[in-house]
Amino acid sequence: MTQRIYDSRASDVVEFEPLEPGRVGLYVCGPTVQSSPHIGHLRSALVFDQMRRWFSHCGMSVTLIRNVTDIDDKILERAATAQAEGSDEAWWALAYRVEREFTAAYDALGILPPTYEPRATAHIAGMIALIEQLIERGHAYQALDGSASVYFDTHSWADYGELTRQQLNQMESAEDADDGQKKHPQDFALWKAHREHEPVTASWASPWGRGRPGWHIECSAMSTTYLGDTFDIHGGGLDLRFPHHENELAQSRAAGHAFARYWLHNGLVHVSGQKMSKSLGNSLFAHALLSEARPIVVRYFLGSAHYRSVLEFHDTALAEADAALTRIETFVIRAERELGMPAKTAADALPAAFADAMNDDFSIPQALAVLHDTVRAGNAALDAENPLAARDARDAVIAMLDVLGLNPRDPVWDAQPESERDGALASLVEALIEQRNSARIAKDFATSDAIRDRLLAAGITLEDAPNGTHWSINGR
Amino acid sequence: MTQRIYDSRASDVVEFEPLEPGRVGLYVCGPTVQSSPHIGHLRSALVFDQMRRWFSHCGMSVTLIRNVTDIDDKILERAATAQAEGSDEAWWALAYRVEREFTAAYDALGILPPTYEPRATAHIAGMIALIEQLIERGHAYQALDGSASVYFDTHSWADYGELTRQQLNQMESAEDADDGQKKHPQDFALWKAHREHEPVTASWASPWGRGRPGWHIECSAMSTTYLGDTFDIHGGGLDLRFPHHENELAQSRAAGHAFARYWLHNGLVHVSGQKMSKSLGNSLFAHALLSEARPIVVRYFLGSAHYRSVLEFHDTALAEADAALTRIETFVIRAERELGMPAKTAADALPAAFADAMNDDFSIPQALAVLHDTVRAGNAALDAENPLAARDARDAVIAMLDVLGLNPRDPVWDAQPESERDGALASLVEALIEQRNSARIAKDFATSDAIRDRLLAAGITLEDAPNGTHWSINGR
Repeated sequence: MTQRIYDSRASDVVEFEPLEPGRVGLYVCGPTVQSSPHIGHLRSALVFDQMRRWFSHCGMSVTLIRNVTDIDDKILERAATAQAEGSDEAWWALAYRVEREFTAAYDALGILPPTYEPRATAHIAGMIALIEQLIERGHAYQALDGSASVYFDTHSWADYGELTRQQLNQMESAEDADDGQKKHPQDFALWKAHREHEPVTASWASPWGRGRPGWHIECSAMSTTYLGDTFDIHGGGLDLRFPHHENELAQSRAAGHAFARYWLHNGLVHVSGQKMSKSLGNSLFAHALLSEARPIVVRYFLGSAHYRSVLEFHDTALAEADAALTRIETFVIRAERELGMPAKTAADALPAAFADAMNDDFSIPQALAVLHDTVRAGNAALDAENPLAARDARDAVIAMLDVLGLNPRDPVWDAQPESERDGALASLVEALIEQRNSARIAKDFATSDAIRDRLLAAGITLEDAPNGTHWSINGR
Repeated sequence: MTQRIYDSRASDVVEFEPLEPGRVGLYVCGPTVQSSPHIGHLRSALVFDQMRRWFSHCGMSVTLIRNVTDIDDKILERAATAQAEGSDEAWWALAYRVEREFTAAYDALGILPPTYEPRATAHIAGMIALIEQLIERGHAYQALDGSASVYFDTHSWADYGELTRQQLNQMESAEDADDGQKKHPQDFALWKAHREHEPVTASWASPWGRGRPGWHIECSAMSTTYLGDTFDIHGGGLDLRFPHHENELAQSRAAGHAFARYWLHNGLVHVSGQKMSKSLGNSLFAHALLSEARPIVVRYFLGSAHYRSVLEFHDTALAEADAALTRIETFVIRAERELGMPAKTAADALPAAFADAMNDDFSIPQALAVLHDTVRAGNAALDAENPLAARDARDAVIAMLDVLGLNPRDPVWDAQPESERDGALASLVEALIEQRNSARIAKDFATSDAIRDRLLAAGITLEDAPNGTHWSINGR
């Protein structure tokens, strides 16, 4: 079976051939840790988690690097603004706090941890070395005003624009420098001179003076540190294709690296039919999503569209995802009860149609259709008391759910608050306490004692107090 | 009130005076992320969490830096050994995986995240700058055999030995170099030349050639980056006092920094009366502790001794901690039921005797005695129907539990598996199903329907199948 993927640079679906047979090196652009994770961040991390799981299922050894951009204009501005309002939090403490929020959200959705999660601030030396190479090769220059800033010379690199197939003269200006420092408006910053009003901890020594890296050079340095100068796949959200990825590609190739062989971009998220943006104020944050639905439902929803399509979030999206997932979960529960569950899923249980869909540029909607068809067939087989067919369906469903990270028996879903169970328990216990009180009023002590004993057997202690009967589990 | 602390350097209990009024800068040596967290790691992180919470309670702004040593001989050796056995995992992936294990264990115990958690590999430039300063000042020299290694010249620094009050000629040799590279046996490595068989990613360019930092210089660089050249407190386990902290202090002072003003060391953990060590094979790992008792019980146990004492772990230690904590929890539940719970704890609710104990070098055993006395007094007041006294006790108990990070109502304890509740629920539901079946057999359909409706009202659906009646919550 061959894996086909849509390579943004080729602008076509192509056959994926790993650099080294049996191995995949995958770099995914992670967040700038300036504010809480929103649905767009989660979707991007999730679709690459789906791909990684699929590659692993296919027997490949996957190295997934997802970075954290922990030094950036926006982080410094946010910290400075908060400090002006009395906050005690340094920029690096803010970045770390937000990084932890991202990790918690990824973990909640069952997104497997990357093989490594490099922080940009940990790779300054590699970035400086890359910039030195670019200057040496004539593709970068120090700021025209003599400051410590260094720019990439877009006009020196004939292939500039190759990723997004744009001509230099039709491109927008890069927004990262004052006028008069750059040779051409499209040139972008590799190194940004330290500014007086910024904290000194946000600058590093360099051959050009103290400063900090530009955004694009960060990923060029981090990806090759862990994956080598040539690696398989570079991924990220469609919004990063230009200028971020275009600039990454140009500077890495200009420095002499072949860099990523394939570029994969995931589509954006629309909220109620609109593009999500800070200015529209319609950002949908991780904590809001996770308070509206079970984490496994959020995962199902975020991973339900094709990764290249726009994902449409609307008012009933999570309820629809919950209904779809519940159909699957109900079948799993029923199959487990009626047939038992094998300790390990048979390796060959995955339906060919599911594998075909995944091999065809990760066509999740087709793969989910196979999953739902199999659930229907499984229920029908159980109804018809056909255990052989039912067992096959059960095994196929579990195998598909494992690949998708949606197996409800995966312990990752256990640590979640069990509010529904708690509610059910409280409701039952309180009803039994009422029955017991009625029995006591009727002087039916046999019944009231039996109810108390039943509760005790379940680990529930009753305590009669003037204001009513109270219960606790094992005295707590 | 003055805070008194035992300063290891002064070898005495002294008054703590922060460098800047109202602020505390605290650096705690974190783990070398080579293998899973054990009880010793957890205890160290926990006692400094207790101190941090106490300082915060006293109105101070605390900056707590706890590092991760993610480059080290042991990490490289572990990764190389595993690779020789077929592992695919690079040293940096191993370090990251273990770092995540530590984070999970800290989080499970309600240890607040540090203000920042620096990784050693992110601070190589700062370490190189520090080594350059030491060479310039005549306190460090390049290896005698001409390799890229650099050593601290212990004989050049008159105060060497000041932390542990040792004379140079009585000290053990440092173990980090081959013979013939150092001037004196006590000299220790600041920079270790890259070795051919080690991965190139584990080395960085330096003025002396490719290499990696020595362990001690890491903490000297990381602490001062975030806390300044002079800062309040340096903490860590007693096992780090020599040589690690002695060397840190010497090199930092020799480079011209005043460095930490106070040194705090926590005592070790004994397991069944013996020192815990890899060679004895009696290491007690976080996952074992957390599978034996509720996380809040593990926290109570680990934080129950004075931080400077040996903590004795024995077979019944967790059961005893559970019993002690349950007495407190039972009072909280009872007080909440009989008196309600205020939305916010009164700021002045903390008993003076508790504060006195904490101010006296964090005397937790005395503080816990006040807590248990207050619980007893609270129960007595409830028994005596004295709501005023009971309310005071309730407020005091909650205030003390908040300071100790042991408030059972803290959401940090919610995310834990609720196996007891699940067990209670299953037990009750199954009993009701039995009753319903008995009623149906007796053709008492009013009763059987009433039971089904009761379950439905609790969100529990029944499904009658040939092999019995099955139940699920909201269809799952």
